[in-house]
Parts: sequence; C-alpha cells; structure tokens
Amino acid sequence: MSSSSDAAPAPSGQSLWGGRFSAKPADIMQAINVSIGVDKRLWAQDLAGSRAHCRMLIAQGIITAEDGTAILEGLDTIEGEITSGSFPFRDQYEDIHMNVEARLAELIGEPSGRLHTARSRNDQVATDFRLWVRDACDRTIHQLQALQRALLARAEQHAGDLMPGFTHLQTAQPVTFGHHLMAYVEMAGRDASRFADARARMNENPLGSAALAGSPFPIDRHATAAELGFDRPMANSLDAVSDRDFALETLAAASICAGHLSRLAEEIVVWMTPMFGFVTLPDDLTTGSSIMPQKRNPDAAELVRAKTGRVLGAFVALSTVMKGLPLAYSKDMQEDKPPVFEAMDALDLALTAMTAMVGALRPNIDRMRAAAGTGYSTATDLADWLVRELNLPFRRAHHVTGAAVKRAEALGVDLAQLPIQELQSLEPGVTEAVYKVLTPEASCASRQSFGGTAPEQVRMRIAEWKLRLG
Amino acid sequence: MSSSSDAAPAPSGQSLWGGRFSAKPADIMQAINVSIGVDKRLWAQDLAGSRAHCRMLIAQGIITAEDGTAILEGLDTIEGEITSGSFPFRDQYEDIHMNVEARLAELIGEPSGRLHTARSRNDQVATDFRLWVRDACDRTIHQLQALQRALLARAEQHAGDLMPGFTHLQTAQPVTFGHHLMAYVEMAGRDASRFADARARMNENPLGSAALAGSPFPIDRHATAAELGFDRPMANSLDAVSDRDFALETLAAASICAGHLSRLAEEIVVWMTPMFGFVTLPDDLTTGSSIMPQKRNPDAAELVRAKTGRVLGAFVALSTVMKGLPLAYSKDMQEDKPPVFEAMDALDLALTAMTAMVGALRPNIDRMRAAAGTGYSTATDLADWLVRELNLPFRRAHHVTGAAVKRAEALGVDLAQLPIQELQSLEPGVTEAVYKVLTPEASCASRQSFGGTAPEQVRMRIAEWKLRLG
Amino acid sequence: MSSSSDAAPAPSGQSLWGGRFSAKPADIMQAINVSIGVDKRLWAQDLAGSRAHCRMLIAQGIITAEDGTAILEGLDTIEGEITSGSFPFRDQYEDIHMNVEARLAELIGEPSGRLHTARSRNDQVATDFRLWVRDACDRTIHQLQALQRALLARAEQHAGDLMPGFTHLQTAQPVTFGHHLMAYVEMAGRDASRFADARARMNENPLGSAALAGSPFPIDRHATAAELGFDRPMANSLDAVSDRDFALETLAAASICAGHLSRLAEEIVVWMTPMFGFVTLPDDLTTGSSIMPQKRNPDAAELVRAKTGRVLGAFVALSTVMKGLPLAYSKDMQEDKPPVFEAMDALDLALTAMTAMVGALRPNIDRMRAAAGTGYSTATDLADWLVRELNLPFRRAHHVTGAAVKRAEALGVDLAQLPIQELQSLEPGVTEAVYKVLTPEASCASRQSFGGTAPEQVRMRIAEWKLRLG
Amino acid sequence: MSSSSDAAPAPSGQSLWGGRFSAKPADIMQAINVSIGVDKRLWAQDLAGSRAHCRMLIAQGIITAEDGTAILEGLDTIEGEITSGSFPFRDQYEDIHMNVEARLAELIGEPSGRLHTARSRNDQVATDFRLWVRDACDRTIHQLQALQRALLARAEQHAGDLMPGFTHLQTAQPVTFGHHLMAYVEMAGRDASRFADARARMNENPLGSAALAGSPFPIDRHATAAELGFDRPMANSLDAVSDRDFALETLAAASICAGHLSRLAEEIVVWMTPMFGFVTLPDDLTTGSSIMPQKRNPDAAELVRAKTGRVLGAFVALSTVMKGLPLAYSKDMQEDKPPVFEAMDALDLALTAMTAMVGALRPNIDRMRAAAGTGYSTATDLADWLVRELNLPFRRAHHVTGAAVKRAEALGVDLAQLPIQELQSLEPGVTEAVYKVLTPEASCASRQSFGGTAPEQVRMRIAEWKLRLG
Repeated sequence: MSSSSDAAPAPSGQSLWGGRFSAKPADIMQAINVSIGVDKRLWAQDLAGSRAHCRMLIAQGIITAEDGTAILEGLDTIEGEITSGSFPFRDQYEDIHMNVEARLAELIGEPSGRLHTARSRNDQVATDFRLWVRDACDRTIHQLQALQRALLARAEQHAGDLMPGFTHLQTAQPVTFGHHLMAYVEMAGRDASRFADARARMNENPLGSAALAGSPFPIDRHATAAELGFDRPMANSLDAVSDRDFALETLAAASICAGHLSRLAEEIVVWMTPMFGFVTLPDDLTTGSSIMPQKRNPDAAELVRAKTGRVLGAFVALSTVMKGLPLAYSKDMQEDKPPVFEAMDALDLALTAMTAMVGALRPNIDRMRAAAGTGYSTATDLADWLVRELNLPFRRAHHVTGAAVKRAEALGVDLAQLPIQELQSLEPGVTEAVYKVLTPEASCASRQSFGGTAPEQVRMRIAEWKLRLG
Repeated sequence: MSSSSDAAPAPSGQSLWGGRFSAKPADIMQAINVSIGVDKRLWAQDLAGSRAHCRMLIAQGIITAEDGTAILEGLDTIEGEITSGSFPFRDQYEDIHMNVEARLAELIGEPSGRLHTARSRNDQVATDFRLWVRDACDRTIHQLQALQRALLARAEQHAGDLMPGFTHLQTAQPVTFGHHLMAYVEMAGRDASRFADARARMNENPLGSAALAGSPFPIDRHATAAELGFDRPMANSLDAVSDRDFALETLAAASICAGHLSRLAEEIVVWMTPMFGFVTLPDDLTTGSSIMPQKRNPDAAELVRAKTGRVLGAFVALSTVMKGLPLAYSKDMQEDKPPVFEAMDALDLALTAMTAMVGALRPNIDRMRAAAGTGYSTATDLADWLVRELNLPFRRAHHVTGAAVKRAEALGVDLAQLPIQELQSLEPGVTEAVYKVLTPEASCASRQSFGGTAPEQVRMRIAEWKLRLG
Repeated sequence: MSSSSDAAPAPSGQSLWGGRFSAKPADIMQAINVSIGVDKRLWAQDLAGSRAHCRMLIAQGIITAEDGTAILEGLDTIEGEITSGSFPFRDQYEDIHMNVEARLAELIGEPSGRLHTARSRNDQVATDFRLWVRDACDRTIHQLQALQRALLARAEQHAGDLMPGFTHLQTAQPVTFGHHLMAYVEMAGRDASRFADARARMNENPLGSAALAGSPFPIDRHATAAELGFDRPMANSLDAVSDRDFALETLAAASICAGHLSRLAEEIVVWMTPMFGFVTLPDDLTTGSSIMPQKRNPDAAELVRAKTGRVLGAFVALSTVMKGLPLAYSKDMQEDKPPVFEAMDALDLALTAMTAMVGALRPNIDRMRAAAGTGYSTATDLADWLVRELNLPFRRAHHVTGAAVKRAEALGVDLAQLPIQELQSLEPGVTEAVYKVLTPEASCASRQSFGGTAPEQVRMRIAEWKLRLG
Repeated sequence: MSSSSDAAPAPSGQSLWGGRFSAKPADIMQAINVSIGVDKRLWAQDLAGSRAHCRMLIAQGIITAEDGTAILEGLDTIEGEITSGSFPFRDQYEDIHMNVEARLAELIGEPSGRLHTARSRNDQVATDFRLWVRDACDRTIHQLQALQRALLARAEQHAGDLMPGFTHLQTAQPVTFGHHLMAYVEMAGRDASRFADARARMNENPLGSAALAGSPFPIDRHATAAELGFDRPMANSLDAVSDRDFALETLAAASICAGHLSRLAEEIVVWMTPMFGFVTLPDDLTTGSSIMPQKRNPDAAELVRAKTGRVLGAFVALSTVMKGLPLAYSKDMQEDKPPVFEAMDALDLALTAMTAMVGALRPNIDRMRAAAGTGYSTATDLADWLVRELNLPFRRAHHVTGAAVKRAEALGVDLAQLPIQELQSLEPGVTEAVYKVLTPEASCASRQSFGGTAPEQVRMRIAEWKLRLG
C-alpha cells in the first residue's frame, strides 16, 4: 500500500513523491490494488472460514478425507507460522486470502487447489469480514460493560454527594454526582444493546454464496454456519456477497457511542480547569509540564473527545463508498475495511481510556457541594413548595419565587438565608417549613420521582444495574 | 426562522440581506431562537403528552379534577383549531410548546397554569420528539414492507427469467431477475428490523424528568408511560432530557436504508439506458421531452439515488451538534429536529417512489436473456463440471476452461456451441453431458445451494417471505 | 414537496402518512419531482439571466427587437408581481424556471416562446444557481467584515487587559483579552478570503451551453457574461451544465467558517458559567428564567455552536449526491439547492448572532485578571529569564523553575512573592531583576515577538487590520 | 499506536483484545497518547524547521555560533540516519519532535537543549504540519497537471470522434469524445487552482508563536519565514498554534477533486460494460479471471471511485475534531494528522491511477459513433433548424419535431432517413437543406458557440490549455 511506503523514510520530500509520476501502469495498479497491509488483520477469520469450508466439503463428499486432512494440517501450519511471526506476508499475493492460499500450495501442493471448490473470493471475504466485525462487536460490548462497572462503583461512592446540575452550563438545580454518573451508565447500556442488535442481525453465513449466484456443488451451508457460530445461512447469494450494511450499522453504533464518550470527556476537561476544580486525575492519566509541576493536562480526555471525529468520518467514508453501487461485488468494496478497522481501534482506545479515567478520577467533593449551593439553585424548589403546600398556581408561584430571588440577591444572601418576613411579605402563607426545601441537600432529597436525583432513587438504579451486569 | 423569511420575495437581492446588518440584538436573538416554523410538526405529540400528564396529575391528586377537566377540554379545542387550520401559530411564542400553552391560557384562563406542574420544557420536548421519531419508525417499517411486497410480486413473476449477474458491472454468471430482486427484499428486511430495534430501544418515557433532576411532586411516571405507549419510564432524569441517541440511531438506520435504495436506483438508471434496454418505466414515473417523444428520463430513480446524500448529511449534522455537549440540556439540541424531519421526509419520498417504480417497471425479458448468454457467462459452470464430474483439481479445471473460452472466442461461438472435439482436445474426459451445464438456463438451474439463483431456491425464499409478511 | 405538506396540520398522525401508501405513481412522481417550494428563492437570478439572454438574442438578431421588447416587459411585470406578492407560484409548473415561463406565456403570448431559443433548462438552472451562490459569497464576506470590525473594536478596548491563556483549558500563560479576540480576526480574515477565492473561481458564465453540447445559434456568450457580471464564459458546455463544485467549495468555506464560530461560541458558553464568570451578555442576547431572574442562558452562543453541524452536514449531503454521477446533467443535481440554502441561512444567522454577541459582551476584567495570575502562569517567564539572563541551558532552566514552583506551592505564594533567597538557593545567579518578569503584566509585556501578546504588538495588528478593512 | 500492534499477529483473536482489559492506566495513556507511528512522516519538515530556527537563533545572538553549529551538524547526522534507515524511532518519546530531540541530545549532548529556546512543541508541530500540507498541495497540483496533460493528449486525438452525449444516462445529443474529456480538463484545472489558493493562504509562518503567547526572546520570525519559504509570519500567536483551517481547506479541495475523479471513474466502469463496449483498458490496468480470459474488470476505476469516501470521511473527521475547541492548543488536535495523511495518500493513488487509465484507455470509436446516431439524437437540431431557418416559434418547432420523431419511429428509420415529404407534411416550409443538420456529425459541427462541442471549438480549447500548461 502506498501509505506504508510513504511512511518510510526517503532521501527527500521531493523524491518521496517523484517516483509516482513515472509509475508504469502495472506499478500503480499494484499500488492501488494491494490490500494485504490492511486485511492481514483478517488472518484468524480467514483460517476459521477455510477450516469450516474444508470440513463441510469432506462431510459432503465433495473432496476426499485425505485431501481434506492435508488441507487442515496445512492450515494449522500456517496458523503456527503467523502466530510465531514467521509467515511470509507478500504484496505480490495482494490480500490475506491469496497469501494464505499461496502458502498452502507451497506447503501441501496439489490438494490445496481443492479448498477453493464451491467457494469464491467474494463469499470468502464477506465471511471473513463479517466474522471480524462480529468479534469487534463482542469486544465492544465487554468494554462497555467494564465502563459501566467503573461508573457504577463511582456512582455508589458518590450517590449522596452534591454537585450543580447544569443546563446551558449554567447552574440549574443541585444533583448528586452519583446521579450524574448514572446518566452515562444508561447511555452505555443503550450503546451495548445497539452493538448486540447489530451482532444478532449480522450473524448469518455468507459462505456458500460463491461468486454471486450460489454453487452447483451439493454444499451444506447450514453446517458451515453452525461451525462458524452463525445462526443460519444468508438467504440470497447476491445480497450475501454485495452488502456491507452490517459494517455500516456497527460503525453507526460506534459513532453514537463515541459521541456519548465525547460528552463525558468534555465534562472531565471542564471539571478539571482550575476555574471549576471539580475533579483531578492522577499523573498516569494526564501529562504534565517540567516547568509547571502542579499542572495536569487532561490529554486522555481530550483524545477521547477527538476520537468521535474519526469514528463519524469512518461511517461517512463507507456510506459514500457504498452509495449507488450496482449488484453484485464491485472492487469499491475493498475500501470497506480501513474505515472499520480505524474506527473500531479508535473506539477501543477511547473506551479503555475512559474506563481508566472514571476509575481514577478524584472528585473535590467540597468544591462541588459549594458550587451546588450557589446561583439560587433551589429556586424551583421554592416554587414547587408554593404550588404544593399553598396551592398557588404555577405562574403565581414563579412570580413570587422570582421576587424572592431578587430580594436575596439584593441582600447578598442565599434563599435559605432569606428571613421569613421577606418571604411572607411576598406571599403571606409562607411558613418556616419552607426552609426544609431550600438547601441543596433538601432539594436533591425531595426529587423522589422515578429516575430522579434523590439518593435513594440513585441507589435503586445502581442496585438494578449491578443485578443486570451480574 | 430566517429561512422562511428569506424564501419570501423581496424587492432585490440587496435588500434581502440588508436588514440583517442593522439588526438589533433582540432581532437576531428572535431570529436564531425561534423554532415554531419547524417544530409545529410536533403538535399532535405535544397534545398527547399534555393529556397524559394532565390525567396523571388528576389521578395523583396533584391538580383538582375540575382544573384537569378544563385543561383537557382546552386541549381538545386546540386540536380542533389546528386540524381546521384556525390555530394561531405565533413566532412570539417561539416553539410549539409555548404556542399551545399560550393558547390554552387564552382559552381557559387560570387552570392552564397548572398543566405545567411537575413538568419542564426539557422533559416535554424530549417526550414530544421521541413520540414523533417513534411514529416515523413505525411508518418507515410499513413502507419497507410495502416495498418488500412489491419486490416479491415482481420476483415471483420473474423467478425463472434470466439476466446477467454482474461483478464490476461485467457479465459474470447468469442469474434470474427474480433472484436479483430478492436481494433487495433481504436488504429491506434488515432495514425494517433496524427501525424496529431502534423503536424498541427508544420506547421509554422521559416525561416526569422535569428540568433535569426529577420532580418533588408525587407523580406517576409509569402511568404516563402506559398512556403514551412507552414500555417504562427512563431511569435517569439527566439522561432523559439530554440524550438524543434515539434520533441518531433512527437517522443511521435511515441512512443505511437510503444507501440500499440508491443501489437499486442506480441499477434502474443503468438498466434504462438505451445501451442496456433491460427495463422501461411508464410515463407517469419518468419525464419526457417534447421534441424527443420516445425519450424516458428516469428522474424518479435519480432523485431516489440523490436522497442518500440528504439522509447521510442529516446523520452527520446531528452527530456534530451532539459532540462534546456537557449534560444536561443545552440549547444546541434545538438543532435536533431539522435534520430528522428532513431525512425522514426524504426517506418517505424515496421509499414511496421506489415502491411505485418496482411495481411499474417493465423488464425486457428477451434483451436480458440475450445478455445473460454473452460473455462466456457459463465458464464457471464448465470449470465446476470438470471438477465435479472428472475430479480435476480446481486449478487444472480453471486452466482447461480458460483454454476453451479462448478457443470459442477464436471460433466466434458460445461455449455451448463449441464442438465436443475441441473440448476433448483440451481434456479428453469431457463427454456430451457437459453441454447440459453450458446454457444460461442450465447454469441457473444448477445453483441449488441454499440461497442460490436456481428458480426453485428463489421460489422457496419468496414463499418464506410471503409467510413472514403475512 | 412532501415536507411542506407534512408540516401542515392533518387530522391525525395516522392519516398524516396514510395517503402516501395509496399514492398513484403520478402523485409520488409529482411529490418527489416538484422543487418550486425550494427554488423559488432563485427568482431574482432567473429574471436576471432571462433578461441578459433576451438582450443578447436581440443584439445577435436571433429574435426581433419587437419580440424581445415584449419579453423584457413581461419579465418586468413578473418582477412586479413577485415583489408585490401577487405572483402565482404553482406546483404544477414544478420549478421556478417553468413558473416564470408559464406566467410569461400568459402575459405576452407567442413571443414568450422565443425566449428559450438557444437555451435549455440545464444551462438556465446552472446560471441561476451560480448567481445565487455568488451573491451568498458576497454577503458572507460582508458579514465576516462586520464581525471583524466588532472584534477589532473590542480588541482595541481590551488590548491591555489580562486573562489566562489556556492550553487544554488549563492556565498556561497570561495573554491579553485583546490578543485573544484578535485570533478570531485572523480566522475571519482567512474565511473571507476563502469565500473571495470561491467567488472568483465560480465567476464564469454557463449560459449558452444549452442542454449539454452548446448551441448552433450565433449566440454571444461573452455578452451575457458581461451583463451578468461574469468574468468570462465557461469553456466547456458539458462541464458547465454538470458540475457543482462551486457550490461544494462554498459549502466547504462555510463549514470551516462555522467551525471557527463554534470555537468562539464554546468559549462564550464557558466564560459565562458562574465558575468562570469572565463575561456576561445582556438580556436581549440571552434567555432567562422567570423563577431565577439572575440567570442568563447563552442560548445564542449555543445555537451558533450547533449550526456547525448543519453546515458540515450540507457539505456531506451535496458531496454524496455528486459522487459517481456520469456526465452531463442528471436529475440527482436537483438536490443541490436544499443543502446550500440551508447551510447559507445557518451561517447567515450564526455570523449575525456572533457579531451581536461580540459587540455586546461585557468582560469582567477583574475576574479575568485574577485568574491570569493563578496557577504559576509566569513559570515560563522565569525559565526564559534564566536562559536569557544567566545563559542557563533550557533543560537546566526548566529544572530550576519546576523546583521554584514546587517551593512556592509549599509556601502558598505566587512566584512573584517567592523570596529571593528561595530562588537563589535553587540558582545562585538569580537577582532581584527577575521579579520584573514574574507578574502577568510583565509576562505579557515581554512577549514582543511579532504576533505575540504584548499590548504594543496587539495594537499594531489592530491598526493594520483597521487599515485593511478601510 | 493501537492499530499497529493490533495488526500484528497474536496467538488468537481472543487474546488479541484480552490484554487491553487489564491495562494499567499508564499503559492506556501510553497507547492513546503516542503518535510517532503516524507523525514520523513529518521528519523532513521537522528537521527543516529546526534548522531554520537554529540559524535564526545564531543570527540573533540568542545562542552561540558554536552551539548552533553543533546542533546543525547533529541534525545532519539525524537526517543521514533516517534516510539510511538506522534512526531509532522509539515509542517512549511519543512523537517525531521528541524522537529527534532525544536523539540530538544523545548525539551532541548539552547544546541540544538550546535548540528549544524561544520555541514550544505547539508552534513546532504547527510549523511541521503546515510544511507537510503545503508540500502535499504542490504535489497534488503537479499530479493534476499530469492528468490534464493526459486528458489533453487523448482529447486532441479524438476531437472529432463522436459519442452520445447523455443526460440522465439517456442519449441526448451527439458530442465528441474529445469534448467530453475536455470537461474533465476544466474540472482538474479548477481543482488545481483550489489547491493553489489553499497553499497561498496557508503559507504563513507559525514558528515563533511559542506555546501560545509569543516569545520574550528577540527572535526574528521574518527570517525563519524566509528560510522556510513562508510569505510572512502569522500575525497572532494564539491563532498560529490553535487553528487547523489550512488542513481542512486542503481536505475540502481533495474531497471535491476526488468527487470529480469518481465521476470519470464511474463513466469508465459504465463504458467498459459489455452493454456499452465504448472503451477497453489494457491488462495491466484491469484484473482478469483465469477461467474467463476475455474478461477485464475495471478494478482501478472502481478503486478510484471508492477513494471519494475516504477523502470525504477525512474532512468530516477533522471538522468534527475541531468543532467547539476553545483556544489555544488542545490535545484533540493530535488527531489532525491521520485524516490528512490518509486522504492525501488516497488522492495521490487516485490521481496517479486515473492518469494511467486516461493514457491507456482504448475507445471503440465505431461503437461510440453508432450509439451517437441512435435515439433520434439530432431531434434538437431539427427543432433548432426550424426556428433558425423558418423562424418558427420554439414551441411550434418542438411540436413539429416531436411529430417527426414519432413518424420516424413508426417507419423504423432515423431522422436523417425520414423522406422529405414526411417532413413537409408536418411543416410545408422544410427543404432538403434540413438533412445537413440531421446527422450526428452535422449536429456536432453546428455547435459552434463558445465552449460548444464543434471540433473546432474543442481544438481551440485544447490549444489554450496546452499554452497554459506550458
């Protein structure tokens, strides 16, 4: 691939590109066509697919047991070579499938040619890639559950600790830090279920679709499906070799998930500014400065936030590739793997880094509590009290509360410190009981509606999630 | 909104923009903030949410039955006004929620103020929009099933009619036209299941989350969930008012679906060129030319193909809006509705137009059959025969076939017309039986593997889908 | 268009979509094909193009002066009707071009048919759209200059006022608020030059390319180019009717510009949180809360930040539409206008709102100055002093500075308050002169490199820009 | 980087991901933070920047000539090591800048520390990346000119050879193949000018902006600008280290250019189907099939078409990364390089492959000419003749032509073969002279308007372009 050779040092920037101009057609064809640098990541899936196909061919009597055994042993040898690092990946064989095929021929000779009976590179690559994407979904689900566990542990710890709840990044109402973290448990839960749905939908076997029309050999696609863990064979051979919606759906789930992570990452960056000072992260998750030793830069959070771009870009890239392609296989589809690999690598890093940060972040509880109490954050509690206890209509309650806040501002005090006379001058029915709702603690404690920020509510949600995650 | 006023005629391009420069802050704030032009589409959902909320408030004793009845009657009046076209949509009230609220106050006076007890615009808009997107998913599923039925009907009709199966838009192997159409039935089936999954995942009730922290009133979120057809209340109030992943997931499903449609649209455009002449469309699905009366432009197919851009653009737009937003509600989220409305409108049109085209297209069976027989499209059948019947290794079979094709090319005949002696000179074991696989019909008929193009296989798949669609 | 009819009230959500299923082909064709709802915004450009074409036809003797005069008068009448609001826009005539043509025929009869001599809808729409996009570029350049002027005025006012310069949103080094604002003057300057380049590149005349191949009439494309303000005719008729790169380039410039605005918008949101309290905005550029009268939500800034999504989505949408379209005109291109109109409307609003905010924002100079002095923000100044005055190697200077910061932290003082003995114990050569660089003011004043934050530098840049903007 | 280690063989898919779960924070921080695998491509730019900085430091007396010479020699040694492949790239030093710095310290000891005087990694990376992108623009411009030359050569060869001009992929009017190719010369010309504009706009020097605020050392930014080929220093240090609009603009130009290539690629794919048979490509630009030796798959064209996705995805990726980032440097920006490198690599391959294909494609002139004559492609010529010669109004001329086409269709003849009586029965004024415009050759020859398809016009445009390209 061009990109790898470009990355290699060259005498000068000039000559770096120079060679290309005089490229013979054959050279540029080789350069644009070769994919082994990218698709060698499919080696395990390619071997698994070939084994399943081979065993089925034997079982159906399409090849002899002898040839089949030779093939299977050859594939074992190849696996050994790859895992030990001695396998000769060669550009001349273009992709992982032909590299394995060529090596098999070198290893076992003639019987190797029988492996491709009733198979085409079109259904082979569709199978390999589907297996890889399925594995990536499984891995991502595990990582999301790890993130959820990290969030749950911190939420439990801080189920009763207050912080300002923001709208428009303005203080709105007090919430608990545990409640805030649990919002991300919900998001991660939906993310995981999206990957699970994608996985279930893609879990069908393309193998046996051959080039595009199916095979005249008496193959058993249910058998290869079973061996490869697929739920069933795909029902249309043209569809099987030419659609990549499973990859797009996975990229979409990854993009939405990365978007969720970008929000928490932004919050960590904001919480860590000296102006907020809500949280710190330990040295090994930040970068510092040799001349400002007190400084902690939230690099990991910023990189997590940035990965969103890469994942969204990957969805756009593959969507654009697939737009308007006639059936069945077109070579355009070779461009399906780079965006998927890059996006899933980026998400892998982002999830792992976020899980580490969630586990390691150290909230400054006092600062958060103090901020939760500023900005007349319990004004809605006063209004709600007036409605609930004095049966004021909402609009009137809002009016009285607004006047009370203005009065408190003028006096330079919090609502909880406003003398009862001041409140009664605005609404005679107000009693001392009102002060029970005017602290941030009381505000949080009162929000007992299902899913609200009251610590008991938060603890119930935590308990439910711990049960679900096992 | 700016766009509507800009669309209106103005004396000149100059003055069209001129006013803006001298805009007072209040004017630009109004212009950028107002959303009634867009979100009035949520009126039915807004009324449904308000009714559910009101009934729950009565049942829980939070408002009196009297006030509640007045509110419900007022909402009925508003529905009447909207459906009859007499409702006064007013920019000064910014959005649909405040337009309804303001009108309710005009209609019933004081009790109207009680409707907003234990509710905030944040959970209200989240509920309304979720209901709208849920309805859009349901509608899209119905449209996809309509498209599938249209495809099934045509596939049944043409289960045995041949056409060239292409790879790289080069003739590869014969397939049946029915088999080709069934590939899109599979895609549409996965598309529908994606919308169904999205719908199931989003079907939770945000109402009762209030501004962001839940409510201190003794509300019953399960009751409003039940009335609105939600499966349960959302479990975290911050999450409920601040996430829009349900909209993103729906847009992703729409984008993948639009991509599928773009492929069939491209095929229709290609099939309709005079060079192909595979299909025609009737006058009412094409545009013509007054001076070339024989000409049929596939405008509808081209527009379906183009809609992909709009839907993908919408996913990018909303993903970008949501990137890096701290919890909970930020005004950025007001930009969630335009991309969703536009994308779902575009998909609505594209699905309807495609269903109409599928039902109306007239294949030129003879031309397709003739094309299926050219280009030595049964070469793989010869190779497979050599493997199957003479037990040649694959590589040798390929070699013999290549030689046979070259020989046929030299003689200017099809493979099926190549004399037996020619074949035997290449491989002595060949018998007259080989000719049974060398016609396109035989090729198709032989591909009996599950999901293959053999007419029986195609008919089985059709039967299964008809059962599934009911 | 579907979207407009969907937006209209309907008896119920059910029936809202119901009609579509039973749509006759002709109905869906009409629905997907009609564009007058969108492209009527081109009316002024369409009239301008027709007038130029008509005058050229007369001058070249292709139509008679009599017919030409009738046409020109008819076009005047149409302009009058449109500007007065009495023009009958009709869906049945599909687009703006046919609406005008049909109306002209009604008004002047037979001569109207001569206007279309040597012209096709393909070059007509290409011309109209190009004129519109060119106007939009001009307008945007003016708006960017207005934004620059607003920034310059504020930068001049605050050229010497300090604030923390952030990296990673952590305090790094003091800068002046004026210097910070001038960064956006530079960005806006590049944005404006991008629109100017796009404008220059697109300023070629497609008119006279006819359907795709040019015209056999003796037309004068240089004459129409001159009248329409184009620099020259486009040199290839196929290119002229089938490319839309001018729209894509404009959308790309708009997307980059919107990205710049999103950064300043983010900063305003962050600066306005109570934790920062760096700036406030007046009531008419924020939204408030009836119960928290002190609250100011930065809605306008958030909406500006969100518009980035819409503009980027538009670039993706049109790029996807154009991907892989064969020459010349395809109907897909009708989807060029909605993304362009929406993106340029969004940018129009965003620029106007940002200009208003910049003019109106009230910095809290004291708070910003105080923050600029925290976090040992002059540590690099100490290190630079050690290098400059004592000739320490950089690495050693960093080491000494780090130790000094640690010592100051331990003592709970700023670097400027650290006793000279402490510094000398770390590096004996340090003299009292060092204190001159340890205040934020001294730090800023010292950064006299071209483009640095020293107030004189900032004022020089302001002066240069004022000259450039005239 | 994660991606490279994942790509490496591992014992099994299981363990491939397994390690990540137990990652210590330090490990994931290292994994997400390291960029040397990507940014080592900047080595030449990094050395160039360091040399310029070093020479300026000497000239300004900021470092001694002795130290400076040691540094410059050390940099020479490093260049030698890199070009010979012996340079030790090490992950522990994170990026290219620190790898070079660390190596320099190993090579020359203490003086190495002086190189970083008055410089920060922030302005260093901004300078390196800007230099790389500038080089990439230059290279792309050269490649676009090579493509133009290839197109010009073929256009000249086929300036008079006919093919059908399509709209909606339906035959519309005859054009010459040369004219068709020249449309892409125009597009490539605009593409090149876009890269030139981007280059000119970005050609300013960030070096000397230091971390974000400028430097207190008496540096000479004009001198480093001159040495590095920049037109001037950037005028605002915050802007210099924190904007990446030059990369976005380059990606936008690349995306538009890739879109143009996708259109020609699509045409090559379509032209090469057996149904069209308009062109063939030689073996070394296609892939074949061992069993269908006559088959030529247009893989290179399909891959060029697909690259559009990657480039557009890159623009989206970086746009999303930059959205809403506060000034100045944030670590998010480290994600600027992968999309730019990938996109420019993809465009490099696509341009080179397309240039090779254009040079090598073999048009089947006879088939194209034959197709140009079908479908009544000269109907507009008849209509234009009626207008021009008989002064019929356009509408009437259309009507007569439509009737003539219908008549010819009924008789099974072309328009040129329709007897004069038939034409006269429709419009008595028709004379034998009409036949001069009814052949495809006459149609093309008549379209003499500037930019039209008449061979003389095409040849004039070719001559002009040859002059411009020199």
